[in-house]
Amino acid sequence: MVQHFIESQQLTLNLMFSLFQRADQLRHGTHEVLKGKVMATLFYEPSTRTRLSFESAMLKLGGQVITTENAKEFAAVVKGESMEDTIRVIASYVDCIVLRHFEEGAAKKAAAMSTVPVVNAGDGRGQHPTQALLDMYTIYRELGRLDHLKIAMVGDLANGRTTRSLSYLLGKCEDIEIMFVSPPHLKVGDDIKDYLNKHHVIWHEETNLDAVLPLVDIVYLTRIQRERMSSIDYFNAKGNYILTQKNLQALKPTARVLHPLPHVEEIDLSMEVEQTDPRVAYFRQAQNGLYVRMALLDFLLNQKFEEQPTQADAP
Amino acid sequence: MVQHFIESQQLTLNLMFSLFQRADQLRHGTHEVLKGKVMATLFYEPSTRTRLSFESAMLKLGGQVITTENAKEFAAVVKGESMEDTIRVIASYVDCIVLRHFEEGAAKKAAAMSTVPVVNAGDGRGQHPTQALLDMYTIYRELGRLDHLKIAMVGDLANGRTTRSLSYLLGKCEDIEIMFVSPPHLKVGDDIKDYLNKHHVIWHEETNLDAVLPLVDIVYLTRIQRERMSSIDYFNAKGNYILTQKNLQALKPTARVLHPLPHVEEIDLSMEVEQTDPRVAYFRQAQNGLYVRMALLDFLLNQKFEEQPTQADAP
Amino acid sequence: MVQHFIESQQLTLNLMFSLFQRADQLRHGTHEVLKGKVMATLFYEPSTRTRLSFESAMLKLGGQVITTENAKEFAAVVKGESMEDTIRVIASYVDCIVLRHFEEGAAKKAAAMSTVPVVNAGDGRGQHPTQALLDMYTIYRELGRLDHLKIAMVGDLANGRTTRSLSYLLGKCEDIEIMFVSPPHLKVGDDIKDYLNKHHVIWHEETNLDAVLPLVDIVYLTRIQRERMSSIDYFNAKGNYILTQKNLQALKPTARVLHPLPHVEEIDLSMEVEQTDPRVAYFRQAQNGLYVRMALLDFLLNQKFEEQPTQADAP
Repeated sequence: MVQHFIESQQLTLNLMFSLFQRADQLRHGTHEVLKGKVMATLFYEPSTRTRLSFESAMLKLGGQVITTENAKEFAAVVKGESMEDTIRVIASYVDCIVLRHFEEGAAKKAAAMSTVPVVNAGDGRGQHPTQALLDMYTIYRELGRLDHLKIAMVGDLANGRTTRSLSYLLGKCEDIEIMFVSPPHLKVGDDIKDYLNKHHVIWHEETNLDAVLPLVDIVYLTRIQRERMSSIDYFNAKGNYILTQKNLQALKPTARVLHPLPHVEEIDLSMEVEQTDPRVAYFRQAQNGLYVRMALLDFLLNQKFEEQPTQADAP
Repeated sequence: MVQHFIESQQLTLNLMFSLFQRADQLRHGTHEVLKGKVMATLFYEPSTRTRLSFESAMLKLGGQVITTENAKEFAAVVKGESMEDTIRVIASYVDCIVLRHFEEGAAKKAAAMSTVPVVNAGDGRGQHPTQALLDMYTIYRELGRLDHLKIAMVGDLANGRTTRSLSYLLGKCEDIEIMFVSPPHLKVGDDIKDYLNKHHVIWHEETNLDAVLPLVDIVYLTRIQRERMSSIDYFNAKGNYILTQKNLQALKPTARVLHPLPHVEEIDLSMEVEQTDPRVAYFRQAQNGLYVRMALLDFLLNQKFEEQPTQADAP
Repeated sequence: MVQHFIESQQLTLNLMFSLFQRADQLRHGTHEVLKGKVMATLFYEPSTRTRLSFESAMLKLGGQVITTENAKEFAAVVKGESMEDTIRVIASYVDCIVLRHFEEGAAKKAAAMSTVPVVNAGDGRGQHPTQALLDMYTIYRELGRLDHLKIAMVGDLANGRTTRSLSYLLGKCEDIEIMFVSPPHLKVGDDIKDYLNKHHVIWHEETNLDAVLPLVDIVYLTRIQRERMSSIDYFNAKGNYILTQKNLQALKPTARVLHPLPHVEEIDLSMEVEQTDPRVAYFRQAQNGLYVRMALLDFLLNQKFEEQPTQADAP
């Protein structure tokens, strides 16, 4: 049976732990578990960082890659081939498809037609489930646990795909407390709040980052998108959502700073601090993406990825 | 001696059968017959589907690939390097060049300069011989023979490169009957008709697809190019050249539907029919391109591709 | 300790000879010395020829490649990620980065942040040290020595990056005499002249190529950039800086013609002469780029590249 990875709802705690243990193993040595296999990275919009991470993951397992950042050209030639037909053709050339698409739901449609595993590498305003997976893997790596956690999520929580997915996955863990730190007009959605309530996750809303920093195990920063607010709102807001050398001091020694990257002004640390302070974890987080994608590809292509029933409670 | 694959005239029946038998073998297992070899895909115009098919073929033989869809840039830098010089440089980096070019005859010019095998992946209005090869391979796979065939070719036969090449190759086979089905102003050229007469191939011209469907072993559909006729001609014509769920019923159970893909409105079948009716062969046809290109690369790089004298009777 | 190759100043005579001997070995057989390793080609501006040469080098050593000619997109997404951050992320996916950038000094900045070797594949008006390396390797291959040489450098010597680097490296060799042949307003810079004086290299300036050809062991041609002079200057000048079938006759039988390629009108030889006259060495020179880059990658990734003190006397 063909296995796909389309949405974070497929991830149970058990599956995550299995993937993380496999990812830990794959950090060392060279591997050939996907020798003879070919993966296509089919990107309908460019996302170089994500593409390179998947491609390196495949190569480091002994597999091979064919690639296009120009997938729209398939359709353009004749003004009308459906994405489903494209998927059927490409699936006949390869052993696995990594799909990036600008339309929500595209990955699900692709999986329905594909004779080989499809991995969702982001579909519009929909999901980007390997980002959620690498975020959880980073917490697991950095703190050694996925429970008994206090987490601050900071920035644009209304539009942020990463913080939504992370909240969702944390709902599967024990003894979680989330502090949502955002400008008033960029608060996290009610659907997430309802979901967290149902799963007994404690949550608060805050507007000031400094007040929260001393309390948490994880600070998950995201970009305040200047284009989503007035200049005055931005000017008033931004100081509250920037991590600086100064307010970093308030963070517990065992705490960790995460960010999906790329970061801009919401992180204002010197390169030296970034390189030496063990609490700065976001570059290790990016590297974790490589290893957890290796584990995922190994599971999908070597039939170790038991499909979990889609959970109806997903937000 | 360096061997190239530039035009379908190089294909004798014997060579085709050898390639097809090799392609059949290569469908199974993993292969390393091109280990240590590097192929360049040098595309002066994008053709993602063809490029990915060649690249996967090379990788699945244990070879490696370097690629550019940006080959025009070579020339652009200094406004004047000849394609021949580019070929000489690239040939010194790799073991094989797959060339796509917008100018007819480019592949031949490239082969003349190259110290490694050149494969023509389409040169303007010229040839695209691996497409013709995969079409013949599909007939061989689906029907188990390349003789005693009744074939309908449908659509724009005046401009269609694929139907011309296929007619040419069928001229080498025994007991062939071709029905050309096209709007009156898009009929197949006289050169093809002369060639078929000379090779004792029976042919007719028809304008109505429905009348032909019950009679044939193969329906080879191509796109009616709306931009090549007036709206009224198109409106009157199009119903006659579309395969629908209804007229598909008239096709013999053992017959097969082929199409070079991508298809648009000339095929109006549900996805379910496409997936379950064994007569719908065009996705298998696309996949056959992978295997026959594997066989071709193996022959060219491992010196099994004996060059055939170019036949003077080519159209 | 991480080793980088950023500027030609790192090349001592000893290191060059070691690289050239390794390059000679790597011309034969297949190799797996970089098996399991992944290289990223991170190009902020396209340079297809250089990129393909590096990529083929990596693949022919058993390594793998991930690639982008679209590296600007990293920054574009959020209008603000620094190149240093991009390097840190990519360095966490791969074992080596080949960087092409439009800004002088970019490679040095990248190396400072990278946890894996960085190779400079050209940074703006700065360096392109693997070009200088392959030029020297070609002299070594063609003449069997790097000393007792008379060399003509021809064309735009004021702006040419390649002739500057080559002059610099020749300054490390014994008994060198350089003839700079250029239009009066495109003479080589005083810094190079000072450097050569300091290193006891004899040099002259000439304006007429024909007078120089019978005297030299190497003619290193470069493009006269028409856009850098008036039409009249160009018309008067160009005849003096073109190698033709006629003036080629004046060249000694053991001499060699080099050119960094692509060439345009400054070389006016028939393809037959280019293919049969052993003095025409510029296509072999391009191929040498492949082998010397293989040697370089082997040295950098397998820790054989001992860093030399940067020499203060670099021009």
